[in-house]
Amino acid sequence: MRLQIDVIVWRGPIRESRHRLQAAVCDVAGRLEAGTAEPETITTFRSAAKPFQLLPLVERGHADRWGWSEAELAVMAASHTGSPAHVELVAGILARLGLTAEDLACGYHEPLDPASLEHVRSHPEARSALYNNCSGKHAGMLCLARSEGWPTEGYQRAEHPVQALMKRAVAEVCGVAAESMPTGIDGCSVPVFALPLAAMARGYARLAAATAEGDARARALDRIRRAMCAHPWAVGGDGRFSTVLMQKTGGRLVAKGGAEGLECVGLPRRGLGIALKSEDGAARGLAPATVALLEQLDELTAAERTALSASRRPVVKNHAGLDVGAIEAVVQVPAAAR
Amino acid sequence: MRLQIDVIVWRGPIRESRHRLQAAVCDVAGRLEAGTAEPETITTFRSAAKPFQLLPLVERGHADRWGWSEAELAVMAASHTGSPAHVELVAGILARLGLTAEDLACGYHEPLDPASLEHVRSHPEARSALYNNCSGKHAGMLCLARSEGWPTEGYQRAEHPVQALMKRAVAEVCGVAAESMPTGIDGCSVPVFALPLAAMARGYARLAAATAEGDARARALDRIRRAMCAHPWAVGGDGRFSTVLMQKTGGRLVAKGGAEGLECVGLPRRGLGIALKSEDGAARGLAPATVALLEQLDELTAAERTALSASRRPVVKNHAGLDVGAIEAVVQVPAAAR
Repeated sequence: MRLQIDVIVWRGPIRESRHRLQAAVCDVAGRLEAGTAEPETITTFRSAAKPFQLLPLVERGHADRWGWSEAELAVMAASHTGSPAHVELVAGILARLGLTAEDLACGYHEPLDPASLEHVRSHPEARSALYNNCSGKHAGMLCLARSEGWPTEGYQRAEHPVQALMKRAVAEVCGVAAESMPTGIDGCSVPVFALPLAAMARGYARLAAATAEGDARARALDRIRRAMCAHPWAVGGDGRFSTVLMQKTGGRLVAKGGAEGLECVGLPRRGLGIALKSEDGAARGLAPATVALLEQLDELTAAERTALSASRRPVVKNHAGLDVGAIEAVVQVPAAAR
Repeated sequence: MRLQIDVIVWRGPIRESRHRLQAAVCDVAGRLEAGTAEPETITTFRSAAKPFQLLPLVERGHADRWGWSEAELAVMAASHTGSPAHVELVAGILARLGLTAEDLACGYHEPLDPASLEHVRSHPEARSALYNNCSGKHAGMLCLARSEGWPTEGYQRAEHPVQALMKRAVAEVCGVAAESMPTGIDGCSVPVFALPLAAMARGYARLAAATAEGDARARALDRIRRAMCAHPWAVGGDGRFSTVLMQKTGGRLVAKGGAEGLECVGLPRRGLGIALKSEDGAARGLAPATVALLEQLDELTAAERTALSASRRPVVKNHAGLDVGAIEAVVQVPAAAR
């Protein structure tokens, strides 16, 4: 099915701005079930790669040996809001490893969580890399280094075995050659990979379809997906769309967003994966577009559609708190493709 | 001249995101000198309308009667950073009018200026509508109401004569029928108008070409342009692109940006106006695209190009302060249009 996905930003009766999205919906073999005009668009996987970057730790048995809880695994795949609960979870992982926030290479940025934000603004000495939305991923990377007996120092660099192993895992799950993936530096200073949207969708199809009856890789993917779906808050936090989507579908879908306008979703029942990218990198159109695409795929129940209505068409408010517009996704089957 | 304008966001070697821009370059008669595929795109004028919203106050002689300085006129056309100097300037205007920040309807938002931001965060009681980037425009609206003997209460509403008069001024300068302009509500709660980019460009051509030898309207436009070009900091502030562009061209160009990815520029020597809009509303591509378009129009000297190089290709830094990419505008003459 060929689709066109746009998000219109309305200001009163005026079409003020427009986001164009590219999307790929694939099965585990990489077959395109649905997509926009350019489902092979190559872009950065950003934080949507996190479930697969976590794969080596689980697959090699280290997660079992350390006895990480589902919430701890979920935060290792998270882009969290830096709420007190997230910070505590990550600090606990580091403490078990005999490490501290000083060992994290992700840098500090202000947390999204309002309580944490107020805290770090009024207590500048409390600022630490634990608040970085990627601190859980970095704790997982440090755990992998510790588990394999590699130095933790420099774990964020492309040439460190932690990063090489994670890059290979991402490439394999998504069905692309690791050496074909252009590499850049992510917001949190670790390598970031570029691959086609269709390959990302294939990876999420595998994450969705994996079962405990499969091989070591499938068992690891199954465990990661279950951890994420059981603890959507750990993967994001209040108000984050990936968290909302998993919560409102009762953990039936697995979802993970990434910076620069990326959202990936796994549909376990149908063994499908979705990768959706705002061409311009904007985040604001992703929730409406993702919900609209799931509707188009007939994936949501009536109750879920109602529960997701605020994500489907967010209201735009101005500085005085007045409703001045809305953000609306439009999914069409282009005439030429009918 | 037919153009295609894109802005590419690079992350290392990866094209991570792309902004598409529409542009119109027009003369005072509205003749299209250059433009992208859709120069008649209708979108909101947002803060780029401010010089024309200020027109009635000047044209009717009120600015002279109050004896407003050039800096005071400039801040009435500003989207300022809320620096202490801006706040003081606007507070001074209100005091002369016998009004206070309580009379401003624009609401509060955090200022961009770092010193002011630190101040309002550590002194919540200091928060006021003076810090709103539109507070100067609102002070001008209050002045118009006072000058005409209209109530200041409710000056922000579409049905108030202040707003009706300003709407007519915007429509007339841009050469469109006021009743044809769809109206929404701006970020600061006053009406915002939608019109074609080519009409906005025509308005800026008139702002650029106006002289003191013309009629009352031309004299008012000339005075507003001179005030803006003489006080670029008052119109924006440190780091704001419109300010930078006016400063780096020694006040030869007049420029004013608007929310949702709009930049308008007047070229006095050639009597041309430019309106440039990021289709998706993003701000980050505007400076590179505007400088690239001015280069394409052969409007910048070699020294100005050098002075504007940081705006032409901004570096992207991550949370740890590493250079991880760049934002680059590409202006092309499409093959089909050559």
